[in-house]
Amino acid sequence: MNILLTGVTGFIGRKLLIELQKTNKVFVLVRPESDRTGLSACQVFEFTDNEDQLVNYLVKNKIDGIVHLASLYLAQHKSEQLKDLILSNIYLGTVLLEAAKQVNLKWFLNTGTIWQNFRCNSVEYHPVNLYAATKQAFVDIAKYYTETSNLKFCTLKLCDTYGPGDTRKKVLALFKQIAQTGEILNMSPGEQKIDLLHIDDVIAGFLKLIFLLNGNEEVESEYVLSSGCYISLKDLAQLYMSVSGQTLLINWGGREYREREVMLPWQKGKVLPSWSVSKPIEVGIAEFCKLS
Amino acid sequence: MNILLTGVTGFIGRKLLIELQKTNKVFVLVRPESDRTGLSACQVFEFTDNEDQLVNYLVKNKIDGIVHLASLYLAQHKSEQLKDLILSNIYLGTVLLEAAKQVNLKWFLNTGTIWQNFRCNSVEYHPVNLYAATKQAFVDIAKYYTETSNLKFCTLKLCDTYGPGDTRKKVLALFKQIAQTGEILNMSPGEQKIDLLHIDDVIAGFLKLIFLLNGNEEVESEYVLSSGCYISLKDLAQLYMSVSGQTLLINWGGREYREREVMLPWQKGKVLPSWSVSKPIEVGIAEFCKLS
Repeated sequence: MNILLTGVTGFIGRKLLIELQKTNKVFVLVRPESDRTGLSACQVFEFTDNEDQLVNYLVKNKIDGIVHLASLYLAQHKSEQLKDLILSNIYLGTVLLEAAKQVNLKWFLNTGTIWQNFRCNSVEYHPVNLYAATKQAFVDIAKYYTETSNLKFCTLKLCDTYGPGDTRKKVLALFKQIAQTGEILNMSPGEQKIDLLHIDDVIAGFLKLIFLLNGNEEVESEYVLSSGCYISLKDLAQLYMSVSGQTLLINWGGREYREREVMLPWQKGKVLPSWSVSKPIEVGIAEFCKLS
Repeated sequence: MNILLTGVTGFIGRKLLIELQKTNKVFVLVRPESDRTGLSACQVFEFTDNEDQLVNYLVKNKIDGIVHLASLYLAQHKSEQLKDLILSNIYLGTVLLEAAKQVNLKWFLNTGTIWQNFRCNSVEYHPVNLYAATKQAFVDIAKYYTETSNLKFCTLKLCDTYGPGDTRKKVLALFKQIAQTGEILNMSPGEQKIDLLHIDDVIAGFLKLIFLLNGNEEVESEYVLSSGCYISLKDLAQLYMSVSGQTLLINWGGREYREREVMLPWQKGKVLPSWSVSKPIEVGIAEFCKLS
């Protein structure tokens, strides 16, 4: 397949690029300001808001489908970030869809988040934060394109992800840091449960969905990748200590829960068919602790 | 009340401004590029993407609520219009909501369209065009703000509107033009029905909803203003000729229906309570024909 991939500078994008390149021709879309480290061997398309150029690029390279991973992630936004958030999470995807419709592209894999569903037991949309709301807004935009073209469109909603090489400032990275420095970390009371999925399982999910989209079967409009396992931050810290043999100095309750903290992740999504978790959290965290 | 109004350069905005000014203090938000004809007697706020300035303006002028009419209307868009469409129909409203949340504003009246609902007998979202999709996207952005603040938010979905002073290139304006020039107008086969509401009834609807929002009752998340009367373009032309005594030379079928032409407008919306149509189409069109 010839695949256009966005968001390659992120944690998931970098890993997915490597996997996809094994059996496909991968073209990557970057913004002028993107870091291109590691992309020297790739076909790179720099998108400068020129929609016609993008259309020509898709045609010239006979692109079969688009994997759209690029997004601006902000757990809590500041008011001066609104425009960036909307341009990154709505406009860029809309341009891709417009071009996809024009060239009669076969499929489009969109990346969503279980944070589009704040209420764990409801199928209705309730965004955790503005980031999640922009993800839903893009799905609304996509509906116009799927209803006026033959494009197969599917949103893969991700839970929390982790794995080796993850440089994002997420909870496991903080644990690793304080294990090394011995500093005391102020955290919320820590009763919130998270749904934490290893990058290998995330990548396997993307590959499976790309296979489904490129095939002839019907595909639903969204699927979820979930670990199926909900662990509190306190228990996660305990697990980290037991598998690593290191001590974490955490002041539980040293800061407040966030506005709209997710205490129990969404459990009503339809999990991607023919996919299951292969790396249990104990194994993944043991690996994560060992790697620097 | 102190009301902030956007979209005052449009047909509905101009009329609503005049009505609101009779009993309220109205502040208008314009973009730097807006035409300010007729606004010399108004308090004008020029929005230049500075969110903090907007927050200060709302506080300083003790704004009670926002009527958000501004939008970029495109029945059919071109690919180079995507960014403008998203900035006008999603970003500007998001900035207003962000400021509204920060200052703990009481209410927000958003303007939608029955084109968010292509299928006349379904309550589900099916956009007629990308314009309608951006309207829905904004509603999903708003959900984040309503779920994390006390803001009363309601979308008033409008059907087609007309009335004296309407300079938009809509069907009645075309009829008037060819009645005067005698030219032949190529139109689609003309069997599509439209839901056409006189501006006086539109304005009455806005005033009623503003009253509800500023009061203490619960308000639903959306209402519709509908004429309740569905007339085909062919019958509309007939009506125009009979009330005006003029002849319209129309070549029905001289052009194709649009992609995704609405043949029967949405009929499943909840009509705004305590509001009803006061100007039947026969009366409104008779007036419209007479005025130059």
